[in-house]
Amino acid sequence: MNNWDLMENGALAIKHGKITFVGKESSATNIVADLKIDAGGKVATPGLINCHTHVPMTLFRGIAEDQPLDRWLKESIWPLEAKLKPTDVYAGALLGCLEMIKSGTTCFADTYFQEGMVARAVQESGLRAVLAEGILEAENCLIGQKTFRSSVHFVQEFNGFADGRVSVMLGPHAAYTCGLKLLKKVRGKASELNVGIHIHLAESKAMLKDFEKQHGSSEVEFLDRIGFLKDDVVAAHCVDLSDKDMRILAGRGVSVVHAPVSNMKLGLDVARINDLLRLGVNVGLGTDGPASNNTLDMFETMKFASLLQKVICHDPSVLPAYEVLKMTTINGAKALGIENQVGSLEVGKKADIILVDLSKPHLKPLHDLCASLVYSARGSDVDTVIVDGKILMQDRQVKTLDEETVVEMAEKAAADLLVR
Amino acid sequence: MNNWDLMENGALAIKHGKITFVGKESSATNIVADLKIDAGGKVATPGLINCHTHVPMTLFRGIAEDQPLDRWLKESIWPLEAKLKPTDVYAGALLGCLEMIKSGTTCFADTYFQEGMVARAVQESGLRAVLAEGILEAENCLIGQKTFRSSVHFVQEFNGFADGRVSVMLGPHAAYTCGLKLLKKVRGKASELNVGIHIHLAESKAMLKDFEKQHGSSEVEFLDRIGFLKDDVVAAHCVDLSDKDMRILAGRGVSVVHAPVSNMKLGLDVARINDLLRLGVNVGLGTDGPASNNTLDMFETMKFASLLQKVICHDPSVLPAYEVLKMTTINGAKALGIENQVGSLEVGKKADIILVDLSKPHLKPLHDLCASLVYSARGSDVDTVIVDGKILMQDRQVKTLDEETVVEMAEKAAADLLVR
Repeated sequence: MNNWDLMENGALAIKHGKITFVGKESSATNIVADLKIDAGGKVATPGLINCHTHVPMTLFRGIAEDQPLDRWLKESIWPLEAKLKPTDVYAGALLGCLEMIKSGTTCFADTYFQEGMVARAVQESGLRAVLAEGILEAENCLIGQKTFRSSVHFVQEFNGFADGRVSVMLGPHAAYTCGLKLLKKVRGKASELNVGIHIHLAESKAMLKDFEKQHGSSEVEFLDRIGFLKDDVVAAHCVDLSDKDMRILAGRGVSVVHAPVSNMKLGLDVARINDLLRLGVNVGLGTDGPASNNTLDMFETMKFASLLQKVICHDPSVLPAYEVLKMTTINGAKALGIENQVGSLEVGKKADIILVDLSKPHLKPLHDLCASLVYSARGSDVDTVIVDGKILMQDRQVKTLDEETVVEMAEKAAADLLVR
Repeated sequence: MNNWDLMENGALAIKHGKITFVGKESSATNIVADLKIDAGGKVATPGLINCHTHVPMTLFRGIAEDQPLDRWLKESIWPLEAKLKPTDVYAGALLGCLEMIKSGTTCFADTYFQEGMVARAVQESGLRAVLAEGILEAENCLIGQKTFRSSVHFVQEFNGFADGRVSVMLGPHAAYTCGLKLLKKVRGKASELNVGIHIHLAESKAMLKDFEKQHGSSEVEFLDRIGFLKDDVVAAHCVDLSDKDMRILAGRGVSVVHAPVSNMKLGLDVARINDLLRLGVNVGLGTDGPASNNTLDMFETMKFASLLQKVICHDPSVLPAYEVLKMTTINGAKALGIENQVGSLEVGKKADIILVDLSKPHLKPLHDLCASLVYSARGSDVDTVIVDGKILMQDRQVKTLDEETVVEMAEKAAADLLVR
């Protein structure tokens, strides 16, 4: 089932959280199951993987809209983040998990502060996640040291958390917010602990110019010079890469996460995804934080990703639907280093599966399944979500979380935060 | 309620299809109503207006994906269109109407062939529409004459059809597919019959270059020279306008319809909507035909429109949410010449109203209603649709059409067409 091979009248079997059968329904008649799900009129696909977000930022959704990036950050987001309590992070993360389940995301990569609270939301929701506690220096060595220690501590404490559904990375914010020494320490520690690194890279032209003035090279060249870039690095955004930068990323096996909706909404640049793919770079997709998106809907992100490359390249054939589906499933899993566990429907892999209801008018007639999923489907067309073989949602009823409670908790946290 | 003034705890009253009260619920206690709809947890907005589409093309959704425009048209779309029967057009249009009701569109502007079948779908669905039978010459005078007569005949036959919910325009396809004489005839006839003109304009750079080679000026300059451009002209796309073109459109009061999703998907150019707005041009939004979109969801189109301008202008403050909402409601109504009837919630206007359910996780917390509607909401969040005071959908149950029958009819038409 790799490469978006499609199968009609297929069946899947799951045992102890893993896929034990993939094939024609007619060949599955001898399988005895405790529970059967009729997927008639639906399609089973690997659960979608959101490779870059900051889920607790659901709390800031709709705050300070349509503002320039620096004003948005300095006047609205950062002052609010400074006031965040662990319970707020938990409430925001739980709302994000609920939204992701309801839109077919089964695994997400997150970096934020107090990431332990995100891990707890993951545990409760039943989702899978690759989490990293943020490391940020901002020219203050002490803060750099402190956040580094927290990030390492998080790795040690939460690797394998929630029955193994949580895996971990180190989370240096960016080359422009972490100094040379700190970045080297992060690199060394990641190799020592055998975990990946989740970092923002080449996020905006303005920042890039400042960086070049200070360091005499681009962020990518700088990071490469200090030996930072390896195939365990997940680099989010990459909107302003030179040809040389792109060749370096390809050569080092770095995975890029494209976040088209957030990049567009913040008025930044367009990542040259088509060029990166041609160079053989592995690319996943992400929503970025919901405050700059404003959703966590990977169906929406798939459509934006494809259409943005088509218009930028003036070529409707670039980033075709099946390519985008791969980016959101198996290639996302590769980016996060878990492609041996999830990202495709194969025997032996963990059962992270979604069923999309194809009966809706906007999905009819069905001439091309991949195109339907990328260009027509919405998160709300997801009917059933299974992670680790456990049903998190069926008939759009979420089983692991009480929707009303989660929403109320987040609303209360956001309201308190604004008057704190 | 113009300019997206917001009201909390508001109430609306409707009588004989028109809005008779807009105000605080507390001031509405003495209104006696046969039927009350509780809109708690929901927001009432004017129904969305799709200013440019070809609804029967639902039948081609997903056919020939990710292909260059000329190949897509010549090898796939045109051969299929040549085989379309009136019943196919009806089936496709009815599916489109169903999809529009389910995503909060209450009025659409359509140009196609056998447009009478679209009018019948509008009648049955309960929607409002501004329809035009397409006029196309393509260097064959006889076809030009024939389609011109059909378009005029359609205007005469269908103006005020479906209890007045159908209004009409003439539908010359484009300056590059209709000759000088024909365009002059269209202009004269539109003025004589006092109806608008719905035309494709400046759709792609390649076509524009061919046109300039042949006529020595841009499409806009050419049309202006022959006196074609007046304030009753609705010009779809306008992706390749010079500064001079834009000043001409502003000076003549032409309305522009922006169709960002289709323009992006076909790998065309980006319309300079922000510049057009600055010049005072009235801009509405459209999905274009569902074969190049692939939905009729105006919520999606609103988000694409805003984010595309932000990234192209490198400025997150352009096309803010409230501006996009105006484009999709009152400015869309202006473009179609029906702003005295619909497009806002005002006493005396026709009751075209939607209720959007704000209880969904991806709309929480609610800090900014306009941002929620444009950046977070999806068509599937629309709970209730009212047109002309009649409930077309309530609790997502469509009242005027049987969903299953409509879908089956369209599926059958599409399947038959492919083997015909």
